[in-house]
Amino acid sequence: MLSTKKLRNWAVAAATVVAMPVMAQQHHAADSVTIRKMYDNALTSYESYENLRYLTKKIGARLSGSPQAAAAVEWSRQLMDQMGLDRVYLQEVMVPHWVRGDKEIGRIESGKKQTAEVKIAALGSSVGTGEKGLRAEVIEVLSLEELEKLGQEKVKGKIVFFNRPFNNAHVHTMHAYRDAVDQRGAGPVAAAKLGAVGVLVRSMTNDLQDVPHTGNTRYADGVAKIPAAAISTNGAEQLSKSLKSNPNLKFFMRMTCQTLPDVLSYNVIGEIKGSEKPEEIIVVGGHLDSWDLGEGAHDDGTGCMQSIEVLRLMRELGIKPKRTVRAVLFMNEENGVRGGRKYAEEAKAKGEKHIAAIESDAGGFTPRGFGIDGNDGQYAKVLAWKPLLAPYGLHDLTRGGGGADIGPLKGQGTVALIGFSPDSQRYFDYHHTEIDTFEQVNRREMQLGAASMASLVYLISEYGL
Amino acid sequence: MLSTKKLRNWAVAAATVVAMPVMAQQHHAADSVTIRKMYDNALTSYESYENLRYLTKKIGARLSGSPQAAAAVEWSRQLMDQMGLDRVYLQEVMVPHWVRGDKEIGRIESGKKQTAEVKIAALGSSVGTGEKGLRAEVIEVLSLEELEKLGQEKVKGKIVFFNRPFNNAHVHTMHAYRDAVDQRGAGPVAAAKLGAVGVLVRSMTNDLQDVPHTGNTRYADGVAKIPAAAISTNGAEQLSKSLKSNPNLKFFMRMTCQTLPDVLSYNVIGEIKGSEKPEEIIVVGGHLDSWDLGEGAHDDGTGCMQSIEVLRLMRELGIKPKRTVRAVLFMNEENGVRGGRKYAEEAKAKGEKHIAAIESDAGGFTPRGFGIDGNDGQYAKVLAWKPLLAPYGLHDLTRGGGGADIGPLKGQGTVALIGFSPDSQRYFDYHHTEIDTFEQVNRREMQLGAASMASLVYLISEYGL
Repeated sequence: MLSTKKLRNWAVAAATVVAMPVMAQQHHAADSVTIRKMYDNALTSYESYENLRYLTKKIGARLSGSPQAAAAVEWSRQLMDQMGLDRVYLQEVMVPHWVRGDKEIGRIESGKKQTAEVKIAALGSSVGTGEKGLRAEVIEVLSLEELEKLGQEKVKGKIVFFNRPFNNAHVHTMHAYRDAVDQRGAGPVAAAKLGAVGVLVRSMTNDLQDVPHTGNTRYADGVAKIPAAAISTNGAEQLSKSLKSNPNLKFFMRMTCQTLPDVLSYNVIGEIKGSEKPEEIIVVGGHLDSWDLGEGAHDDGTGCMQSIEVLRLMRELGIKPKRTVRAVLFMNEENGVRGGRKYAEEAKAKGEKHIAAIESDAGGFTPRGFGIDGNDGQYAKVLAWKPLLAPYGLHDLTRGGGGADIGPLKGQGTVALIGFSPDSQRYFDYHHTEIDTFEQVNRREMQLGAASMASLVYLISEYGL
Repeated sequence: MLSTKKLRNWAVAAATVVAMPVMAQQHHAADSVTIRKMYDNALTSYESYENLRYLTKKIGARLSGSPQAAAAVEWSRQLMDQMGLDRVYLQEVMVPHWVRGDKEIGRIESGKKQTAEVKIAALGSSVGTGEKGLRAEVIEVLSLEELEKLGQEKVKGKIVFFNRPFNNAHVHTMHAYRDAVDQRGAGPVAAAKLGAVGVLVRSMTNDLQDVPHTGNTRYADGVAKIPAAAISTNGAEQLSKSLKSNPNLKFFMRMTCQTLPDVLSYNVIGEIKGSEKPEEIIVVGGHLDSWDLGEGAHDDGTGCMQSIEVLRLMRELGIKPKRTVRAVLFMNEENGVRGGRKYAEEAKAKGEKHIAAIESDAGGFTPRGFGIDGNDGQYAKVLAWKPLLAPYGLHDLTRGGGGADIGPLKGQGTVALIGFSPDSQRYFDYHHTEIDTFEQVNRREMQLGAASMASLVYLISEYGL
């Protein structure tokens, strides 16, 4: 069997070859060697990938408030504890506790003997239908505006079916998501205001599939809370077609989800103290919670493992960052962002000085770049590092970025909020579904992401931002 | 159900948004709109993807000389025939006809009751072991050089086990392949020269897996032909470990593969005549044959479907190329490149003027760029188009490239040989195995590749090279 050491020797040989073109450009020659070492180590190590396997397969889905979320907190705390970091700690945060209950039932009822089961999944935070379920006519709309125009007369007593698909012409799938997700977030309130009794939302995916994609929805004070579910894209196509031939068909949905009292949970934090400016903090993070349907692999097990991997790479390669590097595994991104908000509150209360926060929450896919939400100087500084990053496929250094969990830090001093951008093509095939599993993660793609984040963290740690 | 037309309307809206930054740079404003239209159409069409499904699921594996290869020829000819192209034709080529025979048996025999089955697959072109199989001691080496040094005394009568792994530190996996594949291609001859009776080669993959990766090997005149098989990477690790504890263990291998007489087969060709310079030809192609183990999805069903998609996009969008655009589905890339050689021979004999040939044979993954094997002027011209291509993730416009099937065209006039470069991370997970199946292809990634190729073909057709 070839030892890891032997594999590493091959790596060293490769380093010499690949580092040369970068060095030739005289851009921080020593930095290019350090960065190459991080990639070499990341690409030849299986530790982070095996950790992801544990998180997804042994712990599994870990929605806020669930026993599995508690297990993930304790496991990841122990994991970082064993790494010999300068500090590992938990940060208390009260989180919502929503539970799905029984597997949902969704059925198109066109006539007495004409029924068809379709796959639905309650949206996060949704109320249930009661044990007996809900049966009503369906009104299909493509937008909140279209619903508004229909008015109370056509909506009252019905299930509103939001069926605007992803615009597949977008090259970046996140743009398609942004264009469509208002239906999921704001649809139920808009429908309830007009007297609807339930909501179905076409799943947020580019693909035509049988699996429903859950995701959070929001209710508003003073507006009736009505049950809301995601319907698979194939189911949505089927329902839309059925409505064309029989506009009076009924849809039956049964969901026993409910919201229980808030639960005490934690952000899990590990850090390496800066050797020269320990008071300047660089955060690298992902979210530890996941939806309850799959294994939370790409969303966001990979982001958490990559964040820990950044610390491991620095430790293993003997890199002593000049500024403090802190990995934060945020709790409750999916249905509340309570962890992200708590982290920012405490940072403010303690007067901590964050100079940058990098979030990985777009999947463990092959790296494309970073989105930088910062001032002109910060963006220019990152752009100046492009010769060091581009050899690893990091070409997209765009303005605007960040992420849900680091968002609450915005405005604290001059912190730059940076979103890691992996390739987006496959993300919404799996996002918030039962098929977001370990098997969908490629070790190399995930590790390239970790090395990309480590490279940027290293540069910020050396030169500030 | 949302009609395709409706989806296309969404696409048009998106076109306006995305085309702007490119137009603002004043680089061929009209071209940027045309390119955007090709991406819009490709990303919202399911035709090519459904064709790939047919090729992989209904026809399946299609090694040269097999009935399935004949089916693939006839099916793809009919497919292009129905597209209303200016010309669709077959080009005769005699191809090797190697057959695998029974499923191979591989077994580590450490003692009477200590045996372990490991997965092996005969290398293409290998001779068999005879019905009774072959049993011999094993000598493990990491390179041809190491084997050479061992000499006849230590090798004679044994099975040589080439076990140098992929160097995972390479960011581009193709580099790891190039570093390792000499073991598969040249190993059997080198081993036979020293009196070995068989060869095992560690599978050409970055991953640790149970599936063996086949691939072609070569014999030499005057050197004994000995049976050669790929062993899965997990099997290789196991065998290497077993040899450490018991250097005298024996390995049993049974393979009934054989080479039958050559068979008449075909390259399948379809073209759109150039409106202004029909004599200048741009080839876009992939190879229609595949290894016999899986479905030949990424290798190279996607390349074939993308090549046809280039023609479909031009037809559907009413683009009349100024120069002739020819899609070529080459036969026999995997074990002979007879189709590629025949194509170049006939081109030369007819005095055809090829100005560029683009090959897609690195998988249907998310696009990264193109590798250009051409003169300084040709490379500079492609680089000047970068502002039109980079918005679609095509940043890697590197020198050097081409491909196996278009390689024989080299030197005919000033033809530029161009290899399409998709992201390389997952290619060798599937390459030449039973898991290179339709399910591993993401529709959007494949279609982005087709649109990337169509964009470059379009630009060359407009401006020459």
